[in-house]
Amino acid sequence: MTTLDPTGIPFDVEAIRGDFPILDRTVGQFPLAYLDSANSSQKPQVVVETIDDHYLNHYANVARAMHTLGAEATEAYEGARSRLARFIGAAGPQEIVFTKNASEALNLCAHTLGSSLQAGDEIVVSVMEHHSNIVPWQLLCERTGAVLRWFEVTPDGRLDLDKAAADNLINERTKIVSIAWVSNVLGTVNPVRQIADQAHAVGATMIADGSQGVPQMTTDVSELGVDLLAFTGHKMVGPTGIGVLWGRYGLLEKLPPFLGGGEMIEVVRMTGSTFAPPPARFEAGTPPIVQAVGLAAAADYLDTISMAAIADHEQAITGYALAELQQIEGLTILGPTELDSQGRPVDRGGAVSFALQGRYGQIHPHDIAQMLDARGVAVRGGHHCARPLHEAYGIQSSTRASFYLYTTRGEIDQLVDALTYTKKFFDK
Amino acid sequence: MTTLDPTGIPFDVEAIRGDFPILDRTVGQFPLAYLDSANSSQKPQVVVETIDDHYLNHYANVARAMHTLGAEATEAYEGARSRLARFIGAAGPQEIVFTKNASEALNLCAHTLGSSLQAGDEIVVSVMEHHSNIVPWQLLCERTGAVLRWFEVTPDGRLDLDKAAADNLINERTKIVSIAWVSNVLGTVNPVRQIADQAHAVGATMIADGSQGVPQMTTDVSELGVDLLAFTGHKMVGPTGIGVLWGRYGLLEKLPPFLGGGEMIEVVRMTGSTFAPPPARFEAGTPPIVQAVGLAAAADYLDTISMAAIADHEQAITGYALAELQQIEGLTILGPTELDSQGRPVDRGGAVSFALQGRYGQIHPHDIAQMLDARGVAVRGGHHCARPLHEAYGIQSSTRASFYLYTTRGEIDQLVDALTYTKKFFDK
Repeated sequence: MTTLDPTGIPFDVEAIRGDFPILDRTVGQFPLAYLDSANSSQKPQVVVETIDDHYLNHYANVARAMHTLGAEATEAYEGARSRLARFIGAAGPQEIVFTKNASEALNLCAHTLGSSLQAGDEIVVSVMEHHSNIVPWQLLCERTGAVLRWFEVTPDGRLDLDKAAADNLINERTKIVSIAWVSNVLGTVNPVRQIADQAHAVGATMIADGSQGVPQMTTDVSELGVDLLAFTGHKMVGPTGIGVLWGRYGLLEKLPPFLGGGEMIEVVRMTGSTFAPPPARFEAGTPPIVQAVGLAAAADYLDTISMAAIADHEQAITGYALAELQQIEGLTILGPTELDSQGRPVDRGGAVSFALQGRYGQIHPHDIAQMLDARGVAVRGGHHCARPLHEAYGIQSSTRASFYLYTTRGEIDQLVDALTYTKKFFDK
Repeated sequence: MTTLDPTGIPFDVEAIRGDFPILDRTVGQFPLAYLDSANSSQKPQVVVETIDDHYLNHYANVARAMHTLGAEATEAYEGARSRLARFIGAAGPQEIVFTKNASEALNLCAHTLGSSLQAGDEIVVSVMEHHSNIVPWQLLCERTGAVLRWFEVTPDGRLDLDKAAADNLINERTKIVSIAWVSNVLGTVNPVRQIADQAHAVGATMIADGSQGVPQMTTDVSELGVDLLAFTGHKMVGPTGIGVLWGRYGLLEKLPPFLGGGEMIEVVRMTGSTFAPPPARFEAGTPPIVQAVGLAAAADYLDTISMAAIADHEQAITGYALAELQQIEGLTILGPTELDSQGRPVDRGGAVSFALQGRYGQIHPHDIAQMLDARGVAVRGGHHCARPLHEAYGIQSSTRASFYLYTTRGEIDQLVDALTYTKKFFDK
């Protein structure tokens, strides 16, 4: 099925699926319906081939090697930095720090920004954060005596901005605000720009966790209005083992080092060391060289299709899924369910979590995930690394289906059929 | 050339080279002589194919995914942990923490062991350490008021144990001792066991940086006598983006978390969290899944050849290189040069750094590296991330040739020819 996205670019989901060999797999007698992309995305052949080619034909360590292979590897690695800068509209490659994953990027923020915190300073997150945007701040508060505060959520799955305003959540004691751009459970797209403006008004640093947002939407860090943005490679058709921290250079320059080691230094003496400017300052040791090269290939792949087209496809599929899933009796969706006149979700990304009420009570998400797996449908059951959010809704866990550029309406139908089967099974 | 290693296993370096396609490359009109393996090793086809196969046929996130692909990915990832445990003689997979590189592993040690340090406590390293085993401890000392002390080196490139004894270097204030098993510049194999015994006698924790040792020698952590061992994948024919911290489980269990995020937790509440037991406690976020799988393939590859045979080959090649290089007038080797009656180096690994004196003074290592590169020989020129060591010898930098299982005598001859040519060129 070829459709036109709003920019007029043809989007052929079947052709895209041809780039992902794993999607041809079957599970038992069922075709695989991989609906776990918010957990991790699959990889197109071209990304894997780029990784291969680099290892087998151009591999060496970077920066420190002056020979031919070293030059080729360094060019590929630094080229990847430029490519990622372009992918998110950064001012330049010097604003791109390669980390091992988004969690390291957020911990890097906590350790470096945290070095100047004092007892009583406040850090603001939200109850809908992934654990990776909660625990580093809790650990920081323990180290410094800073206080962790948070946005609550409304029943329909949005940040409770009214309560935050009433509570004076962001105030003159606030030093850091760190919020998910898109919730990995609710799919909610948060008003990051608006919160960033509030944070900046009190002189706080604004961080966005872009793990779910960057793979799904066109990213322009200047529009987003944040100071730091963390995201990860493996959710955007790239390799595991690599994440990115983008930062405004003026801020990065002021931050102290995090991990110590080779390449992040200027001069090392036994009696003390000085440090390289960013991004090197934050990349101790041999970096994820080939992972960066693979991630650049992923950015190429996504941009060739066009992020606008991918976002449009994700919106269409999510709208379809929301409509179809709500036909299932006893199924309750967590997070926004509003659709516009075109059937597109409003302020919502492509992760749909739900609870399923059976005749004898809630059907456990682990049971649902297993039943679905037996019918070829890969979803995630659990707290999705967002336990406080589930607690806020009074549940232990949920089932999540999540979509990406290769997801078809047929897979949503397969999901709905498998859920209907599951419900019948447990209602017996 | 097939030779027999001491265990009677045939070692066919030409057959091994056939596994590494990059070694067939030429640089201009010269065949590539890749003598930079202490910086990073090349990868055999089988490692790259394993990475491919995992991405294209079995990929999903681990631990959190209960569907078929998730189970396959988790089995592969946890299988890699068991494989690495076996590779170094660990008590079990629960002692293997996957990190992004050896630097992260050492920083993890500094942050977790460091959380209980007090001002005046002492940390002991050596002047021959890689920056990754100096800077994390300097940063820790800044945070805590602990004091960094170090072993000096003797003129022949060994740890000055006599001076250390005279200075009472390891004493009742010593809490941590962290020493390279094998120097990345001098090649020296340090008496880790002996130093570990001294550290333990005063109740200190003993860490070895195994970045150079683990790829070259059979590793048995119980023989080594340390509490923690850091090493990296990319120097042992494995992928970039992965390192390992091995720790005695009884010690790992007592350490607080380092990075916070998904999978390292037990229960997260907004008001505070509890943490998973090791190794999960130290693996926040999506781990380097496919890199672990690739590293396990690297361990398989090395063990199939046999680490004893690889060590034997490295010794033979290093002995040959030491003998041949010393024929070059004006060339001075840093580190031990002693050979035994079989022409094997004594207490020495396969990294040979040297200075080259020309008619008009020292020839700069950067010039040497460039001249050698033009003749196909890849070496490293610089301080090799060990600036204090170079300062101790009164030099800024050196040229380093380093060898591995695929290195041939012909490549050493090519190095010697290229150095002779370089010297003639600068002596004109």
